[in-house]
Amino acid sequence: MIDVVSLTERLIACPSVTPADAGALAVIAEALAGIGFTVHRFTDGGPPDGPVENLFATRTGAAPGPHFAFAGHSDVVPAGSGWQSDPFTPVRRGDLLYGRGAVDMKGAVAAFIAAAARVPNHAGTLSLIITGDEEGPATHGTLALMEWMAANGQHPDMILVGEPTSDRRLGDTIKIGRRGSVNMWIEVPGTQGHVAYPHLADNPATRLLRILDRVTKVRLDEGNRWFQPSNLEVTDIAVGNPATNVIPAEARARLNIRFNDEQTGAALVERVRAVVAEEAPRATLTAKISGEAFLTEPGLLSTLVGAAVERVTGVTPALSTSGGTSDARFLSRLCPVVEFGLLNATMHKLDEAVALADLHALTDIYERVVRTALER
Amino acid sequence: MIDVVSLTERLIACPSVTPADAGALAVIAEALAGIGFTVHRFTDGGPPDGPVENLFATRTGAAPGPHFAFAGHSDVVPAGSGWQSDPFTPVRRGDLLYGRGAVDMKGAVAAFIAAAARVPNHAGTLSLIITGDEEGPATHGTLALMEWMAANGQHPDMILVGEPTSDRRLGDTIKIGRRGSVNMWIEVPGTQGHVAYPHLADNPATRLLRILDRVTKVRLDEGNRWFQPSNLEVTDIAVGNPATNVIPAEARARLNIRFNDEQTGAALVERVRAVVAEEAPRATLTAKISGEAFLTEPGLLSTLVGAAVERVTGVTPALSTSGGTSDARFLSRLCPVVEFGLLNATMHKLDEAVALADLHALTDIYERVVRTALER
Repeated sequence: MIDVVSLTERLIACPSVTPADAGALAVIAEALAGIGFTVHRFTDGGPPDGPVENLFATRTGAAPGPHFAFAGHSDVVPAGSGWQSDPFTPVRRGDLLYGRGAVDMKGAVAAFIAAAARVPNHAGTLSLIITGDEEGPATHGTLALMEWMAANGQHPDMILVGEPTSDRRLGDTIKIGRRGSVNMWIEVPGTQGHVAYPHLADNPATRLLRILDRVTKVRLDEGNRWFQPSNLEVTDIAVGNPATNVIPAEARARLNIRFNDEQTGAALVERVRAVVAEEAPRATLTAKISGEAFLTEPGLLSTLVGAAVERVTGVTPALSTSGGTSDARFLSRLCPVVEFGLLNATMHKLDEAVALADLHALTDIYERVVRTALER
Repeated sequence: MIDVVSLTERLIACPSVTPADAGALAVIAEALAGIGFTVHRFTDGGPPDGPVENLFATRTGAAPGPHFAFAGHSDVVPAGSGWQSDPFTPVRRGDLLYGRGAVDMKGAVAAFIAAAARVPNHAGTLSLIITGDEEGPATHGTLALMEWMAANGQHPDMILVGEPTSDRRLGDTIKIGRRGSVNMWIEVPGTQGHVAYPHLADNPATRLLRILDRVTKVRLDEGNRWFQPSNLEVTDIAVGNPATNVIPAEARARLNIRFNDEQTGAALVERVRAVVAEEAPRATLTAKISGEAFLTEPGLLSTLVGAAVERVTGVTPALSTSGGTSDARFLSRLCPVVEFGLLNATMHKLDEAVALADLHALTDIYERVVRTALER
């Protein structure tokens, strides 16, 4: 048997801030090899986004059956400063285990493996799709894994992504889709000048303010049955002018829109571009669509996972599409995908922590999912 | 007689970037002592803003009369790079003399002295108030000189500040007042979070946008007979968030208001503070009032200077209050103050230069001002 807490601790001890692997995939590979998985590892990409370490592991049972896969990532976001204890030294305090990645999502990866260890005999095929580039640009991670899988005849029928979907208590939320995400960079050139002679200058900060005020006041849509309303956030503004008496030469901003399936990334970019053109004709807008919105209509997979959650936790999970993007946006091209995992309250924050009881319960849920999906 | 061009060259050759003196006041002191002035020099302040060198020189005539003073500064702003010739090596090319400080305002200081040399016998008292800290924080310069003057019974009745007030041609503008200036720093704390969960975060950039959009849309006043409308400029914005998927923890901005005598610095700060409190209750606002607006109502002094300008140049000067702050904001507490000097086109710029003809004409104007103000 594999202890889910110890395995989580071993993973937290690897400071695998994207794209660093720091030994995380070796821990995973070793554990999987020990319970009968065939493990394939490869790297993709180069500096500065890579190289990225990826892992595909698979184990096929004696009886025929579908191909069920767990998907996740071994990388974590930067720790930030101000933790109560070192973010890469796992520490148990009371009922909690602290460390970067505890919930997002080293704990879930450990639970995948602990669950797989408990079901040595299953029908069909059980796989793990693990990347070291989910929190980063995600260009050399799951996409590369999908390419490798296609080239090697690996075609899952169902995928469960272990992102921390639970909101207030373990089990309350299963994700059946995700909003899309687009980043935009706005650069407004101006005409620098002395602040006492504004008529001789053109303050780019003022123009940028008008743009950002307008776009942050637009209500993009009302949401729909499965999606919350699309939302825009200004994530950065920079003028970079040290002089109090100078009207600056340039002002820049970055914004992010999380959007539902009522929108497309391209149409949103054009809406913002129109405002930019009106308020600052000389400005430039650059956009990068990280992913379009997607939905796995409720069906067999969500029912199966929901039943396992309810059986273990007593909680009936809500089917949700809220939250950030995840690699499910890519994997959803292959087959039905749902996401279920730990509590997201501390993800990406200082003092990220997971309840020990949740790690055990999640392992129980994943075990039940495997048993049901790959019933002999 | 003193040659105004040679004296300007000697001053340019001293690289007196605030607070460095680099020998400039010694040149001035020597010239003034040579034409009968009693010269007092002292330093004020310490690193990093000082020590600052200051000079007060005075010469009293045989007949009783008012006390007229020229005021100015020997320090210059940094040269910057890209000059056609060394900024601290005076070079004549064609009709122009190049060097940092040529117009702002070593040329005017030289013209003060050359004019004083031409009027050895006058009624009353003629003084020069010269500081080495006008371009810097101005905390150890004119204010320290005013303290010294008060302690030593020196009470001018009229002051002419030699700042480069001329705009398109020598003589077109006399300044009879200046707008006030206040800088404000706004810091908006937020609650950092993942951009996909905006309800769990509090985006400080959005709050800052609302503040800045509101304060930049306010029309503070319409100006009045002597002043243009007060004006607010956002001079810096900084969020400093490198992560596209993170709602930032803090957003900061700096703004500057140039205001007329319809406003006071303190009231403007309170107006902005009220908007900040409404849009971002947790935000802090720090303000520094560089100077209040002031006006020397047109009268004896401006008429006297205007007549001298018109007589020498043929130009009828406009009475203006536009432009940046100067030490006149302090001196105006003592008595009527006007400002008149060279062309401001190249001040604070690369290849600062003065027309040789302007130096001579300015000396003629200052000579006529002294003769009229201190008529025997």
